[in-house]
This record gives sequence, structure tokens and C-alpha cells, in this order.
Amino acid sequence: MTTDQVPGSWRHYDDAALSTPLAAALDLFAERGYEGASIREIAARAGLSVPGLYHHYPSKQALLIGLTRVVMADLLARSRRALDEAGPTPREQFDAVVESLLRFHMVRREQAFVASTEMRSMEPDARDEYVALRDEQQRMLDDVVREGVRAGDFRTPYPEDASRAVTTMCVAVASWYRPDGPLSPDELVERYLAIARGAVGAV
Amino acid sequence: MTTDQVPGSWRHYDDAALSTPLAAALDLFAERGYEGASIREIAARAGLSVPGLYHHYPSKQALLIGLTRVVMADLLARSRRALDEAGPTPREQFDAVVESLLRFHMVRREQAFVASTEMRSMEPDARDEYVALRDEQQRMLDDVVREGVRAGDFRTPYPEDASRAVTTMCVAVASWYRPDGPLSPDELVERYLAIARGAVGAV
Repeated sequence: MTTDQVPGSWRHYDDAALSTPLAAALDLFAERGYEGASIREIAARAGLSVPGLYHHYPSKQALLIGLTRVVMADLLARSRRALDEAGPTPREQFDAVVESLLRFHMVRREQAFVASTEMRSMEPDARDEYVALRDEQQRMLDDVVREGVRAGDFRTPYPEDASRAVTTMCVAVASWYRPDGPLSPDELVERYLAIARGAVGAV
Repeated sequence: MTTDQVPGSWRHYDDAALSTPLAAALDLFAERGYEGASIREIAARAGLSVPGLYHHYPSKQALLIGLTRVVMADLLARSRRALDEAGPTPREQFDAVVESLLRFHMVRREQAFVASTEMRSMEPDARDEYVALRDEQQRMLDDVVREGVRAGDFRTPYPEDASRAVTTMCVAVASWYRPDGPLSPDELVERYLAIARGAVGAV
């Protein structure tokens, strides 16, 4: 049994991470976009009446907010646990955060796609909250890269830019990775860790 | 006068690269998504009647196809010219293609966003054509990275994966770069070239 099969591990993913209304909203936002999806369709997909759906979520915006909160809370919790369990060196901590980003974006492809593309559809407060959570995720890796540069483990002259570039290459995995493609999750992690270490100039 | 101000240079960008109907479609697809944008709104934004718009583009799908063709033709032409003008070494060619990707995604942010997010809205033939053009763009960098590994200039054990990772970090610039932000285009190019060279293990 590898750690990705242990429930509770940051490497382990369940199928059923979303409530029925949020899962239905995710499907339709991913297929047709937020503006293109109607409450009526989301209710039907969830097996609920429209008033039944409104009982849980009073608007389409509330569904989008609920969905992006779950997505970001899940990603942040996994990255924090990966960091907590990692060894003390910047290199081990870097690998842990990068691996958590990679695994999340291989598995939660639609969630990541909807949260990032539908920033445009978030009302100002929701967007601010989402951006703050993304910044928090980014800062976790920024701190590790800066510490690695200070310790002499990483040689990049641009720690924040390299950290963002690494984050975006991991996030982009959601746009092309397919579970039935040629790369297993473990192979992708191994290859991308080598590439990401190069991007920060790991010694 | 730097080369990005010379008309005809692959570094030079005009404001007016799209026809009026395509520019209107781009605005609305970016704001509300393909499904959320109506032909009526696109016609109004273009200052045309609906029949007038249909005279140029017979459907909303034709607008999306027209738009993604312009986007990909522009990107491919710039990258090819950058490659043609570059010196003979893999390192010079790598820098040229990466810089062309970076400049495109700093300037053509909305076009890149719509083309990639609305793959879901393309009918099968249009999607196949778009994917083929993206693959062609990717292969240009793949070939340079493989040649660099062969020549001993790049040390990555994963040339294709590193090439894709570099492409995605350049494409992602469209999602966060702001012309009024702290980084000038030239600064961003300098920093990202250093990071991208690290990702392929440039010696």
C-alpha cells in the first residue's frame, strides 16, 4: 500500500469530495461555463427541484463561491500537510509542496479549471477571497524557495518569479494530464520534480 | 528604437490585429464565456445588425473558429520568425522561441485565455484543427530542446516534459501579467529565460 492509497494522507483522493449540488454545479460550469449554465439544469443534474437546490444554495453565485472554497481549502490543507510531513531542508520542503500541487491538479482537473477560469464570474468579495487563498498557496512555495536561496540550496536570482513559474507549470497539468495517458501519477511527479528543481536552480 | 517597436518584427504588436466582428466576439467570450455570449450582443458590440454580422460569420461557432485561427496563426508565425532569426545554437533557438511565447502571452492575454478555455465549445473539426496548431507550436520547442540535449547544451533527462512545462509556464503569463504591474516586458523576458533555461538543465 503506497501513501496515495491511505485515507487521510495528502496524497489520497476520494471520488466523493463534493456535495451533490456542488458536484452538479461543477459539471455544468465545466461543460458550458458559469454564464452558460442555468440553475434549472444544475438542479436537474443534482436530482433536486429548483426550490430544493435554493434551500442549500440561494443563487448560482453561492454555488460558485461554495465550489471555489472547497477547491482552495482542499488544496491548501494538502499542501500544508505535505509541508508539515516533509524533512527540514528547503529541498525536501520544495519537493513536498510541488508534489502536492501536481497530485491535486492531476486529480481535481475540472475543479481547478472552473475555479481559475470563472474568476471573471465572481462578485468582488468572492473574488477577493479566492485571490487571497491563491496568494496564500503561492506564499507557501515562495517562503520555501526564498529559504532555499538563503541556505544556498537554490541558486535562482529570482526566487519569487521562479516560485510562481513552478506553481503555474503544476497548475497547467490540469489542462493536459489524462489518467489514461502514457504517464502514471508517480512518473509525472518524478519528472516534474526534476524540472521544477532546475527552474529554481537547485544545487 | 528597440525591435519591439519595429512593425513586422515578431516582437512588435499592433492594437488592431482583429476584424471588428472578431474583436467584439473576443470581448464577449472573455467576459461571459462562449455559452454566455449571444450573437445579438456580439453584433451590438461590433456596431452591426445581426444579419450584417451573419454576412461575415454565419454562426457563433464560426466566430470562435475565426478567432482561434487568428490567434494560433499569429503565435506560430511569430515563433517561426523568432526561430529563423535566432543564431544557430540550441540555446539561442530556445531563447527565441521562449521569448516569442512570453511576449505573445503578455500582450494577447484575452485571446490566449479564450482560445484555451473555449476548447470545450469547439465542434470536433474545429477542436482538432486547434489542437493540431497547438501541437505544432509545442513541437517547435520540443525539437529545439531535443537538439540541445543531443548537443550537450541541455542536461534534462526529460526533454519533451521539460519543453511542455516551459510552454505552460509561458502560456500562464497571460493569466497573471498586467502591463501596469511591477515587471516590464523586458524584465519578465530576462527572468523567465533564466528560469526556463534552468528547467531544461542548460549548462
